[in-house]
Amino acid sequence: MLPRTYPEINCSIARTLEVVGDRWTLLVVRNALAGETRFEQFQESLGIASNVLSDRLGRLTEAGVLCQRPYHDKPVRFEYLPTRKGRDLWPVLAAMIAWGDRYHPPPHGAPRLLVHEQCGGQVAAELVCATCATAVSPDAVVSVDGPGAIA
Amino acid sequence: MLPRTYPEINCSIARTLEVVGDRWTLLVVRNALAGETRFEQFQESLGIASNVLSDRLGRLTEAGVLCQRPYHDKPVRFEYLPTRKGRDLWPVLAAMIAWGDRYHPPPHGAPRLLVHEQCGGQVAAELVCATCATAVSPDAVVSVDGPGAIA
Repeated sequence: MLPRTYPEINCSIARTLEVVGDRWTLLVVRNALAGETRFEQFQESLGIASNVLSDRLGRLTEAGVLCQRPYHDKPVRFEYLPTRKGRDLWPVLAAMIAWGDRYHPPPHGAPRLLVHEQCGGQVAAELVCATCATAVSPDAVVSVDGPGAIA
Repeated sequence: MLPRTYPEINCSIARTLEVVGDRWTLLVVRNALAGETRFEQFQESLGIASNVLSDRLGRLTEAGVLCQRPYHDKPVRFEYLPTRKGRDLWPVLAAMIAWGDRYHPPPHGAPRLLVHEQCGGQVAAELVCATCATAVSPDAVVSVDGPGAIA
């Protein structure tokens, strides 16, 4: 993870990036949300150095994105499970999948699909307007001053 | 931007992170989508070193997320505008804003709000099912093998 270079910025994007703004970190979250739980699984599927993986799992646990659960005694071993806060990163990953599929498509096709458990349909992140409840085109989004804007 | 450590991974998240997977990079995109166009604007609002900003603007232009447009002759100076590909990052940023607002709220309130140009309502990224057309809870998302899955 990069050093914390802008902790003082009053911005939810910057604060989100403080927690998951490193590429390995988001890929660990991706694999945890896909069902991986154990150190060896992450290491094998990501091809990541064990010290880097250990660091990322520790930070994600400290940030409350993952939680530890013992699965073996003597010696005690822990697995990592996504928390509510971790599962709530699905929209971020789903939005990245949609953008990557469109502009940088995986050469062998999508390796994983996100599906709706109840009906099996494909799940995507879409911009929705809370007032008129319709899908919003990225061209119709305007960024305006909010309550925390600097005067 | 971090070195390209996993160009071979068959994954749209990893490929998206290759382009925007550095925190300064996404903050530059955020400011460009909020309407900033000039080097001096980015530098002042981000407090970023000019060599780092220059590098990120160059990479984003090379990747087709921003495009250059001359706004001054002798000496020629360029400003940076988001492309279609750049505007299509709105859902990624909107999903990060929602997560950050929930779990790491800005201490002084949201500095910026995303609003729907047509009706002024607030815009958020939501998980939607393409088959049943309903909003999907992050708990109802399942990651399954896609066409590019490794057998």
